[in-house]
Amino acid sequence: MTETDVRPAAPLAVVILAAGQGTRMKSDKHKVLHPIAGRPMLLHLMSSVDALGAARKVVVVGSGRNQLEAAVGGEAALAVQDPQLGTGHAVQQAEAALAGFEGDVLILYGDVPFVRPETLRAMLERLHAADEPAVVVLGFEPDDALQYGRVLAHDDGRIAKMVEFKDATDQERACTLCNSGLMAVRSDDLFPLLARVGNGNAQGEYYLVDIVNIANSEGRACAVVTTDDPDEVAGINSRAELAEAEARWQRRRRLGAMAEGASLVAPETVWFAWDTELGRDVTIEPNVVFGPGVKIGDGVTIKAFSHLAGATLAHGAEAGPFARLRPGAVLEEGAKVGNFVEVKAATLGKGAKASHLTYLGDAEIGAGANIGAGTITCNYDGYFKYRTIIGERAFIGSNSALIAPVRIGADAIVAAGSAVSRDVADGELRMVRAEQLVKPGWADRFHDAMKKKKAERKAQP
Amino acid sequence: MTETDVRPAAPLAVVILAAGQGTRMKSDKHKVLHPIAGRPMLLHLMSSVDALGAARKVVVVGSGRNQLEAAVGGEAALAVQDPQLGTGHAVQQAEAALAGFEGDVLILYGDVPFVRPETLRAMLERLHAADEPAVVVLGFEPDDALQYGRVLAHDDGRIAKMVEFKDATDQERACTLCNSGLMAVRSDDLFPLLARVGNGNAQGEYYLVDIVNIANSEGRACAVVTTDDPDEVAGINSRAELAEAEARWQRRRRLGAMAEGASLVAPETVWFAWDTELGRDVTIEPNVVFGPGVKIGDGVTIKAFSHLAGATLAHGAEAGPFARLRPGAVLEEGAKVGNFVEVKAATLGKGAKASHLTYLGDAEIGAGANIGAGTITCNYDGYFKYRTIIGERAFIGSNSALIAPVRIGADAIVAAGSAVSRDVADGELRMVRAEQLVKPGWADRFHDAMKKKKAERKAQP
Amino acid sequence: MTETDVRPAAPLAVVILAAGQGTRMKSDKHKVLHPIAGRPMLLHLMSSVDALGAARKVVVVGSGRNQLEAAVGGEAALAVQDPQLGTGHAVQQAEAALAGFEGDVLILYGDVPFVRPETLRAMLERLHAADEPAVVVLGFEPDDALQYGRVLAHDDGRIAKMVEFKDATDQERACTLCNSGLMAVRSDDLFPLLARVGNGNAQGEYYLVDIVNIANSEGRACAVVTTDDPDEVAGINSRAELAEAEARWQRRRRLGAMAEGASLVAPETVWFAWDTELGRDVTIEPNVVFGPGVKIGDGVTIKAFSHLAGATLAHGAEAGPFARLRPGAVLEEGAKVGNFVEVKAATLGKGAKASHLTYLGDAEIGAGANIGAGTITCNYDGYFKYRTIIGERAFIGSNSALIAPVRIGADAIVAAGSAVSRDVADGELRMVRAEQLVKPGWADRFHDAMKKKKAERKAQP
Repeated sequence: MTETDVRPAAPLAVVILAAGQGTRMKSDKHKVLHPIAGRPMLLHLMSSVDALGAARKVVVVGSGRNQLEAAVGGEAALAVQDPQLGTGHAVQQAEAALAGFEGDVLILYGDVPFVRPETLRAMLERLHAADEPAVVVLGFEPDDALQYGRVLAHDDGRIAKMVEFKDATDQERACTLCNSGLMAVRSDDLFPLLARVGNGNAQGEYYLVDIVNIANSEGRACAVVTTDDPDEVAGINSRAELAEAEARWQRRRRLGAMAEGASLVAPETVWFAWDTELGRDVTIEPNVVFGPGVKIGDGVTIKAFSHLAGATLAHGAEAGPFARLRPGAVLEEGAKVGNFVEVKAATLGKGAKASHLTYLGDAEIGAGANIGAGTITCNYDGYFKYRTIIGERAFIGSNSALIAPVRIGADAIVAAGSAVSRDVADGELRMVRAEQLVKPGWADRFHDAMKKKKAERKAQP
Repeated sequence: MTETDVRPAAPLAVVILAAGQGTRMKSDKHKVLHPIAGRPMLLHLMSSVDALGAARKVVVVGSGRNQLEAAVGGEAALAVQDPQLGTGHAVQQAEAALAGFEGDVLILYGDVPFVRPETLRAMLERLHAADEPAVVVLGFEPDDALQYGRVLAHDDGRIAKMVEFKDATDQERACTLCNSGLMAVRSDDLFPLLARVGNGNAQGEYYLVDIVNIANSEGRACAVVTTDDPDEVAGINSRAELAEAEARWQRRRRLGAMAEGASLVAPETVWFAWDTELGRDVTIEPNVVFGPGVKIGDGVTIKAFSHLAGATLAHGAEAGPFARLRPGAVLEEGAKVGNFVEVKAATLGKGAKASHLTYLGDAEIGAGANIGAGTITCNYDGYFKYRTIIGERAFIGSNSALIAPVRIGADAIVAAGSAVSRDVADGELRMVRAEQLVKPGWADRFHDAMKKKKAERKAQP
Repeated sequence: MTETDVRPAAPLAVVILAAGQGTRMKSDKHKVLHPIAGRPMLLHLMSSVDALGAARKVVVVGSGRNQLEAAVGGEAALAVQDPQLGTGHAVQQAEAALAGFEGDVLILYGDVPFVRPETLRAMLERLHAADEPAVVVLGFEPDDALQYGRVLAHDDGRIAKMVEFKDATDQERACTLCNSGLMAVRSDDLFPLLARVGNGNAQGEYYLVDIVNIANSEGRACAVVTTDDPDEVAGINSRAELAEAEARWQRRRRLGAMAEGASLVAPETVWFAWDTELGRDVTIEPNVVFGPGVKIGDGVTIKAFSHLAGATLAHGAEAGPFARLRPGAVLEEGAKVGNFVEVKAATLGKGAKASHLTYLGDAEIGAGANIGAGTITCNYDGYFKYRTIIGERAFIGSNSALIAPVRIGADAIVAAGSAVSRDVADGELRMVRAEQLVKPGWADRFHDAMKKKKAERKAQP
């Protein structure tokens, strides 16, 4: 998960193509914004690029511009491609955003989010090799080359010819080195080459790949760098491919977690988020889902069927089974949250416990406090949220409602079943309970009456 | 999941054999009633047959007749095979139920439930081909032909010979086209052929397969139609095979769901029912179980660890994590049901929310209402069920009990911790809460006394 | 799961090596104490050994002695190896603990916990074969022999030579029979042979394997017994290998459960504990986790998302979805526990029901009793636990708190929302509820005021 520092020497710009319609996703959400490990795929790619220290990032977008703007914020310039006349035309739209830039340009794809920084660096290094290629193409060797375009190259990586599958001879098709579409080009080569690309083909489109053959024909070398992991250039064009990419990501992350010293009883049932942090000697039982923003300390146990997002668990804390920790949940050392308990924007102090059927929202629970089963912090009046403060070693009796804003003192006791609407002082008992109304024999009479009624109803037609 | 209209021209009857003992299931439930995707396997088969427009359906049963009768209702005639003298004898038991029927007969198996209508139609079409075969057999080519009976056929599908594995020569065994047991026969051929089947074999049984060799020996052509998917003729004879069939069904359904535009973060952890309906841009997090009768609208999100059956969710509704939606649960547009919430026979109006630890049964919740954490509708008195009606924009304070029958008005507020047993008018506040009893220092004294007692108990031997 | 009686004739001692550092686990817990199926791997191994009737067991430990002592109790002698000078040296540390013992000695490994008793017996039988080998080695043939030491053996199993991979010739490496490290040796051979092992190798260690070549060189036969299942000698050295061993164990157990007549809708999502007992015609829905000590009777249904440990369910009982049964939970015939219900040290009598959002701890629920949604037994006062007794057919209204110690009589009714602190007699109604305070129009005025306040806050800069 760590991104090693792989910054190349020359200034770097990145053009990310994201103008495809993504129709196979059947979604109103832009394809590159579909999430993997809780993060839009485009942002995974942008973070890999950040590891290379890109000076400029341009995302070329077709429809869905507003969605992309909201997602990337100021992190990248957006260039709009309209109409959409092919990949070469798409890259041309980035020209204005790159005005004044001199250096290397990587051309990437928003739906190919998991290309590794090391691979990109290898492409950039090749671009600066002695033979000074005009274009470096990223090639891959899939298990089944299918109808991918082929890269016909010499042993030293220099490209003899790029050829589309449909135009390839049988001999050319026998070559299984395929074109991923990813490229590295110097800025002063890129746009002049693109300007010479024509659209005299069946689709009437301007193809990016043509710059290789154009450069070659002008006596410029072009080169291919080959990844040893075809998965890193796998494009995501459907929900099934999205799920496969998620599965690959999760598999890698689970192995990483175990290598770092976490026990995953059933690794295939634990879903991490892109930024989950795990300590040492952590135990995770089957079926745990991590949303973003979770930090797990050493020696923590997450029991089965737990769902965590934005939560922090300190050393020796314990959650679950059936725990729901939402953003702002903090379990300090040795604190425990049990089954059917939800915690949101609330801190449980050292050793505090909420073991059963409880909702703690907008609260501070002191160290050693015991929150009884069925306790509810009433933190919302339909308009505003209010805080509940519970002192150290306080004991909240079961089935109590704490009506915020309210403060329960240290060592205080709230009697079971109380709805507490006023502060409770340190060491005080608060009980809110009506008289025990006793009606001897009433239940027996009720049973008799009801049985009779039930019999009557059955007797009706 | 859709069944294309593949109705053949001639009248059709179907004989489904279901007389096997199913001893490997080790179950009191009849083998063909074990469910896959929440539906007895026999009913899966009957629904495939319905797609062909069968005029008559006969199920041949051995033991467990009552169970089958209850399951198929009036959908099929039942014929009892007692004693059980082989597959040929079993089909003969259907003769009375088919009295007067003229047309094609398909012979199927209750424990081979996933044969496709297209395959059955291909068999029927072959039955009416120019060479007018007397019998059409469904063949398959398994990965490992094992000890299946072999179909020795010419290139045009005409059968030279059917041979049991144990009687086959090595050369015959080298042929890997196997007999699935499924057949198509014209009604006026079927029973005359069966009448000529003998039981002069080691088991003393009448084998259905013999009709092929008998017809052949009388100069009638017989033909084989071969499925390209051996899974569709896989028999289910044990719980392990049942689980495999379930897994195959789920795998296919998940791919279908994704193709139609649903995001399944972890497809292998989502279990659909046979009739689950999904809209577009639906997101389903890991670990969601669908029972029968669920309809999911566009843009719905089902969060992790949710269990739904008989529920309807409209556009933009949200459920989970840890949501339990039972039959009759209806979430209108944008309604939300959160963690540890159960909904049964209750409608949440547009934008209504029940976010935490709540039970809503036999209820109507108005649009925009907010149901606080820990709310319980008390809908049952041990004899009858009663309804709770909650008005639009009403606010039910946390930990409240709504004692049905009861009506809470629009914009009304129920104070936290209230047990409401009488109707609340529009815009009214209802509070049911005893006095806050304050005992300063009581808790401190209690702690002292208990610590002393605990120490004394420890000191005891 | 059953261990057949495979007791050998001669007295048997077992030396279990557990002195490895286990650094790849990155754990403060001793490697051999990491659990599989809820039980430390060392105890799995010790139970296999018990099936052979071992008279003495010695565990050789390096660091973590206290942890091991706590785990094995008096079940085995502990011998400490300090410093750690190799496997041969480790076995030597067991000499004192085996003083006076005469018979066969098995040398096993704490991190190879799943060697089968049948395999061990085969080793012991070979030790007593006519050629009276001095040492019997357990060999295995892995898919990829990698850098394992090789066993060069004759067709009759007599060993020609043991050779480490790094010392092996290409021809020797071509032999794929590998040394698992497990051995059987007679006690009167073992220590004399060990005494002759030297440490003149690169690591300066005393290797156990050397006793084979030493015996050979002295004209004693040594023999290899080969397992047909390489998995049984798989060592567990990392959390990933721990997860793989768990997965293998679970896979086997799930198949066993189905073979015995349990329906597992999604077998890969059910996690058994080492001692789970299952009846016939049990149905287990997806995602069920069993901790230790669970006994499931015939005809029981465990619905999805349930977590059970130490629980007993009688014939026809039902739990889940989302049920948490903790140690001491007993469901008698036909009893039902529904969603978001936790049961601990509590018995539900015949046909009793607790269907929703309930905590039952330290309780006895009579037959036919109905526990309403949101019921909490308040069994803890921060110092001691108390019991709740509920009579037959009693009806506990929703959202009630039963403050233990308390007894609810047979046929009694507790009104919804009551906090019951005093006993309720048979057939009595107990209601603890304040007056219904009505404030007409109050809510409307509150809404107006709050909307105004909200608007003001928004207006602020």
